[in-house]
Amino acid sequence: MSGLLRPGVHRVAGLVDDAAVLGAMLRVEVAWSRALVVAGLAPPRQADVVADAAIDLAPDLGDLIEAAENTGNPATALIAHLRSAVQAQDPDAAGVVHRGLTSQDVVDSALMTIARDGVARLRGDLRRAGAELAVLAERHRGSVMAGRTLTQWAVPTTFGLKAAQWLAGVSEAVTVLDALRFPVQYGGAAGTRALLAALTGDADQAPVVRSFAEHLGLHPASVPWHTRRRAVTAIGDALVTVTDALGVVAADVLLLSRPEIAEVSEGESPARGGSSTMPHKRNPVLSVLVASAARQAPQLAATLHLAAAGAVDERPDGAWHSEWPALAALLEIAVTAGEQAAELVAGLQVHPDAMAARAQHASTALLAESPGLTDVRGYLGDCDRIIEAVLTEWAAVTDTQREDPTDA
Amino acid sequence: MSGLLRPGVHRVAGLVDDAAVLGAMLRVEVAWSRALVVAGLAPPRQADVVADAAIDLAPDLGDLIEAAENTGNPATALIAHLRSAVQAQDPDAAGVVHRGLTSQDVVDSALMTIARDGVARLRGDLRRAGAELAVLAERHRGSVMAGRTLTQWAVPTTFGLKAAQWLAGVSEAVTVLDALRFPVQYGGAAGTRALLAALTGDADQAPVVRSFAEHLGLHPASVPWHTRRRAVTAIGDALVTVTDALGVVAADVLLLSRPEIAEVSEGESPARGGSSTMPHKRNPVLSVLVASAARQAPQLAATLHLAAAGAVDERPDGAWHSEWPALAALLEIAVTAGEQAAELVAGLQVHPDAMAARAQHASTALLAESPGLTDVRGYLGDCDRIIEAVLTEWAAVTDTQREDPTDA
Amino acid sequence: MSGLLRPGVHRVAGLVDDAAVLGAMLRVEVAWSRALVVAGLAPPRQADVVADAAIDLAPDLGDLIEAAENTGNPATALIAHLRSAVQAQDPDAAGVVHRGLTSQDVVDSALMTIARDGVARLRGDLRRAGAELAVLAERHRGSVMAGRTLTQWAVPTTFGLKAAQWLAGVSEAVTVLDALRFPVQYGGAAGTRALLAALTGDADQAPVVRSFAEHLGLHPASVPWHTRRRAVTAIGDALVTVTDALGVVAADVLLLSRPEIAEVSEGESPARGGSSTMPHKRNPVLSVLVASAARQAPQLAATLHLAAAGAVDERPDGAWHSEWPALAALLEIAVTAGEQAAELVAGLQVHPDAMAARAQHASTALLAESPGLTDVRGYLGDCDRIIEAVLTEWAAVTDTQREDPTDA
Amino acid sequence: MSGLLRPGVHRVAGLVDDAAVLGAMLRVEVAWSRALVVAGLAPPRQADVVADAAIDLAPDLGDLIEAAENTGNPATALIAHLRSAVQAQDPDAAGVVHRGLTSQDVVDSALMTIARDGVARLRGDLRRAGAELAVLAERHRGSVMAGRTLTQWAVPTTFGLKAAQWLAGVSEAVTVLDALRFPVQYGGAAGTRALLAALTGDADQAPVVRSFAEHLGLHPASVPWHTRRRAVTAIGDALVTVTDALGVVAADVLLLSRPEIAEVSEGESPARGGSSTMPHKRNPVLSVLVASAARQAPQLAATLHLAAAGAVDERPDGAWHSEWPALAALLEIAVTAGEQAAELVAGLQVHPDAMAARAQHASTALLAESPGLTDVRGYLGDCDRIIEAVLTEWAAVTDTQREDPTDA
Repeated sequence: MSGLLRPGVHRVAGLVDDAAVLGAMLRVEVAWSRALVVAGLAPPRQADVVADAAIDLAPDLGDLIEAAENTGNPATALIAHLRSAVQAQDPDAAGVVHRGLTSQDVVDSALMTIARDGVARLRGDLRRAGAELAVLAERHRGSVMAGRTLTQWAVPTTFGLKAAQWLAGVSEAVTVLDALRFPVQYGGAAGTRALLAALTGDADQAPVVRSFAEHLGLHPASVPWHTRRRAVTAIGDALVTVTDALGVVAADVLLLSRPEIAEVSEGESPARGGSSTMPHKRNPVLSVLVASAARQAPQLAATLHLAAAGAVDERPDGAWHSEWPALAALLEIAVTAGEQAAELVAGLQVHPDAMAARAQHASTALLAESPGLTDVRGYLGDCDRIIEAVLTEWAAVTDTQREDPTDA
Repeated sequence: MSGLLRPGVHRVAGLVDDAAVLGAMLRVEVAWSRALVVAGLAPPRQADVVADAAIDLAPDLGDLIEAAENTGNPATALIAHLRSAVQAQDPDAAGVVHRGLTSQDVVDSALMTIARDGVARLRGDLRRAGAELAVLAERHRGSVMAGRTLTQWAVPTTFGLKAAQWLAGVSEAVTVLDALRFPVQYGGAAGTRALLAALTGDADQAPVVRSFAEHLGLHPASVPWHTRRRAVTAIGDALVTVTDALGVVAADVLLLSRPEIAEVSEGESPARGGSSTMPHKRNPVLSVLVASAARQAPQLAATLHLAAAGAVDERPDGAWHSEWPALAALLEIAVTAGEQAAELVAGLQVHPDAMAARAQHASTALLAESPGLTDVRGYLGDCDRIIEAVLTEWAAVTDTQREDPTDA
Repeated sequence: MSGLLRPGVHRVAGLVDDAAVLGAMLRVEVAWSRALVVAGLAPPRQADVVADAAIDLAPDLGDLIEAAENTGNPATALIAHLRSAVQAQDPDAAGVVHRGLTSQDVVDSALMTIARDGVARLRGDLRRAGAELAVLAERHRGSVMAGRTLTQWAVPTTFGLKAAQWLAGVSEAVTVLDALRFPVQYGGAAGTRALLAALTGDADQAPVVRSFAEHLGLHPASVPWHTRRRAVTAIGDALVTVTDALGVVAADVLLLSRPEIAEVSEGESPARGGSSTMPHKRNPVLSVLVASAARQAPQLAATLHLAAAGAVDERPDGAWHSEWPALAALLEIAVTAGEQAAELVAGLQVHPDAMAARAQHASTALLAESPGLTDVRGYLGDCDRIIEAVLTEWAAVTDTQREDPTDA
Repeated sequence: MSGLLRPGVHRVAGLVDDAAVLGAMLRVEVAWSRALVVAGLAPPRQADVVADAAIDLAPDLGDLIEAAENTGNPATALIAHLRSAVQAQDPDAAGVVHRGLTSQDVVDSALMTIARDGVARLRGDLRRAGAELAVLAERHRGSVMAGRTLTQWAVPTTFGLKAAQWLAGVSEAVTVLDALRFPVQYGGAAGTRALLAALTGDADQAPVVRSFAEHLGLHPASVPWHTRRRAVTAIGDALVTVTDALGVVAADVLLLSRPEIAEVSEGESPARGGSSTMPHKRNPVLSVLVASAARQAPQLAATLHLAAAGAVDERPDGAWHSEWPALAALLEIAVTAGEQAAELVAGLQVHPDAMAARAQHASTALLAESPGLTDVRGYLGDCDRIIEAVLTEWAAVTDTQREDPTDA
């Protein structure tokens, strides 16, 4: 699909493209061959051959994509390539490749590594955006502005509080991302792990799962999840929680940077915001694009839930397949929006004088709740205490992250 | 909207109907008048008057519904009614009613109490369903059946494992529900808590918030969330996670109870499943209705996310309003499906003989992965270990619940 | 579900409530008994008995709703009631009731009559709204205002053109509604019309279908559509096309009535727009509610499409059931929004002086495309010609409606 | 986004990729320069220079994609490239490039040409699928099978009728596609067509629009539609109508090809359906992929409607941008599914003996409605007449297409 129709998508080049998917699937197969060593089903040497073959493997992508239709998934043909390559080097090792796995084990595990990497990157961007918002919240504690509800002037507020509310949204989103788990998938042909059980005389497979997961940096799921897709819907819900929070920032910036309001504006950049016909016009493009992302994401997450609800039998007949493009699109959208939003808030120009002038102009309306008052600065309520509460929470959230060992 | 078009909705009578919303909003106003006592802004006696007036208040519902359009929300007219009733008893107390709140504080807090109650009930139904599934998982450890992937026979499995996977889905859903928080909303006209700050000489409002929340059994949110709707989207995502899990059970039952497969059937009940034209036909109506719920829920949760992303200004201009019907519908759908699913699994008839006969009939296909084997019972892999892991996790989840103090 | 949470819903009282669904289903059964007369399977006298019994039938709604869950649809229990009532009057006539139909025939046909009535009403409201918009487009041909793109000032335009574009949207929506067909459903137990064929010696059933459809004012579908749900998705898509068009009007009014812009405002009404806390604040409540409708409708239409795609077998196992609440909600939302929007545009206050002042103030930006110009009135391009084209198209659309015989 | 995650997507290579979008935008600019000749604003020679420059233009795609973010749309940077190239050949001609257009005119018109081409191709595939289904409907008039409702045996039907119902769905979808119009977009900076009006002394621009549209093979829209997105939502709704119809076919095939039912199977192809672990297993991959498409499409169409409802001002601030990926994804999904479905039905293996045996086995249930009958073949009702009606309608639909001049 055209990148031209997804402005900003160059930021996520390599995140979920064919090379990334291919690489992730190969890493899964290599990790599995290492796990088979733990299972006592392969000598280390054979696992090395698989790893070497995977590094050198350069299958024709076009062929693989066509084969993905023939087999209904992107793994089957790649496995055949890998097996051939191993066979060429060490015929005995060929039998080790993919032994005991099913294609869904490979695709699910691979997508989990991709999602984990995308989420890690997104967390970084949100942390950057949050840090900038924390600065704005501090700096603009005294920047009084008109509070607006249902589009109309309500009571005075401060831009510091607005920035703090944006930050609180980012903070919640980070918390949701932090709670995500990315489980390895291993169930074998129909979720019973039968082949390995048979080959090992019913030995405990827990060490195999741990090894498999550890090599991939995934959570060692003790129960296969071919038909329980909460891991996937949780990622989808979390990514939408991110675009929700960023979407509010973008929508507010779009309103406040209207020329009639002009209380903030997007940072100026020589490259940004140009019009094809009106040379002096500057469009708030980052906000526009982040707002656009927030309009797309919820429906994609809904598709993941519909897939989850349709995950029948021991492995489903279409529901699973409908997850892939939706998850890939969500990752690309959310990570792009995260980086755009970080840039947006870092460059945001705030115009406290315009805010103050507007608040003064609107003071009759803004103070209608408290007859007798005339100074909007005298009716700011708990703005500062709320800002403080948000900053404290943000510090706690980012501290937690620092301690998170999987974050290293 | 017609109840006839939502079969099973009688189960949630009173959950989100007008009486429930009215009662919840009045409880919010009463709780607030108690909180004003804590703030030193009302004598206890006046709060009592408000509470008494609220108990006796019986406004015309039709008028209130029309007024909800006039004011754009269901609270404003009710507040006027309450104030009049208080005025009639104690003119001094009338000023206490709703003092310092905005309508969104009332509606959001009221909906949180309703959502909390719905979720509590749903957790009960899921616990019941889970207990039944745990029994099925234990009982059918030895009930071998054909594993099916992409509709075709794959390898043998057991019905015990299938029940365990259903249970694992319910277990995940319960975990997600357990993690929900239902915050009180208090921000005043535009999220600054200005009026109370002004009236109390900028006293710390934290005790007021705690009192308000405690009276309602809600979480004392230190930061208003008029424009940060994660509390709402988290509920939506959690409810969809429930219908996803139950939808899989229903979809599997629908497949396995097809007459050509006939490995399970819905429990017989004299009232259930009758056809309007074919007297002897029994339709799997509970599964049909649960499956139907799972098809509706994800799009309603998407509406909540879209509302969250559009929560502009200090209080939004339409996005907020679009939450109410979606959240109400989701609650009704999920709680209904929870109760139906609990009944479905409690009554489920399992036919292990049919399963065994089918597995034997399909043994060539089911054992193709392991040439040489002929007995499907000899190729069940880790079925039992996986069942064990699920049961252990379920025990942990339900233990946690027992200790949850808000669950009392 | 609470009406308080759906402001404006009192406008559609009786449209899709239980009495409406009950009445519609009874009318379907009566129409069918008349059709059986045409088929030669009932004497007119027996059809009269059915009609009389239907008029007097007053089953307990609560019981019917519970029964809807037992049978999985709202028709089966009602039919039993009707049959008993007929039996009491004329035992021979009891066999005529529902003979040859299936419950889906009844529910689908009943919902088509309800949808048709809702759409007819919506067309009336859109025609009213369109007439008002046509007046605005004419009246404000000379009302120059700032054209805004991506939130920023672009080139001058007129409010007449804006009103014309709103009208063009309404015009397209009316055209889409006009094209809807509401087919009768008749397929019998599994879409083969077998029972009647057997009873009539394989006589041509076309006259029966025509009679059935004619009595209900529906389109005589020659092919049953139990599993082809285009009739339903077409209605859904059309209703969303309506809320899309009205949503743009509402969103524009919300922007233009912001106090910093103040180029339009909602009509003043003593009852409308009051705030619970700020007595002098007027909220644009009609626009807020219409905008809220436009945020909810698309996901409900998506649910209808998902149901359509899942309509398996000869009659589906859950997909069909998921249509009912979505269609009912969509009808209520769209018809309510139609009436609200008609009131909104009828009362809209336009402030051409404010528009002109703003355009003059912004003239440097607005005329940047055409250096040398200084008067924004001199750069209005084809505004008038485009208005003319829209008005001409609107006249054609409304003329067509007048000639539509089914519109009488 | 990875093609590996969208099996079958190689079928639509070139449909909406960057080269296609780039080419379409250049064709729009060339068509516009021709239209400027009609407007008297450019000598033919200059339009030729533009056309020549466009043919040779090979901008760096990566740069263009980055620039799409900087300007918020994919057109602006391309126009600069084109202008430079023209400038190099004929400085006087450079001013002709894009004169009087806005970037949205280019992107909208370009996407309309792409959508038109995708729809044309889809119509071809549906016609092929329909022709095959018509053959199946004819051939299997006598293939009696069990009719199934709510998963259970109901009354007998024929596979001919099932194929006819599938055909009727395809027929409706083709009708919906046939009714689509693909309008050219021309409004200038803010929908007023001001620059050209100024340059031509307010000459009638209708001939310009006609020329522009004619060069592109689009409908000459007399009214700009920057903020009225019905053209886009109509395409979205139509594409979903297609995936709905094909989704039913796929879902039915998936059910009927289950080994316990085995009444149809996907055509055998050496390449198709292989498993990564079970060599002899054949998965119904085409049905799986078409069913997967039907699960994704509705939510994407909902995104288009949400964008339509948010099309504010004279050109919107994010809603428009959210259309692009959704429309592109929908086109790719629907056209891929169309081709897959055509192949699926062409290769479908029908097993009338299995059907007959099952119907005989189930005869007690299937004939319960008509006591006394014992032969399922004696209770087929109007199967043949309904088939006939569908075939007649299909012939009419395809005849209409043949006469469609734009179809050439």
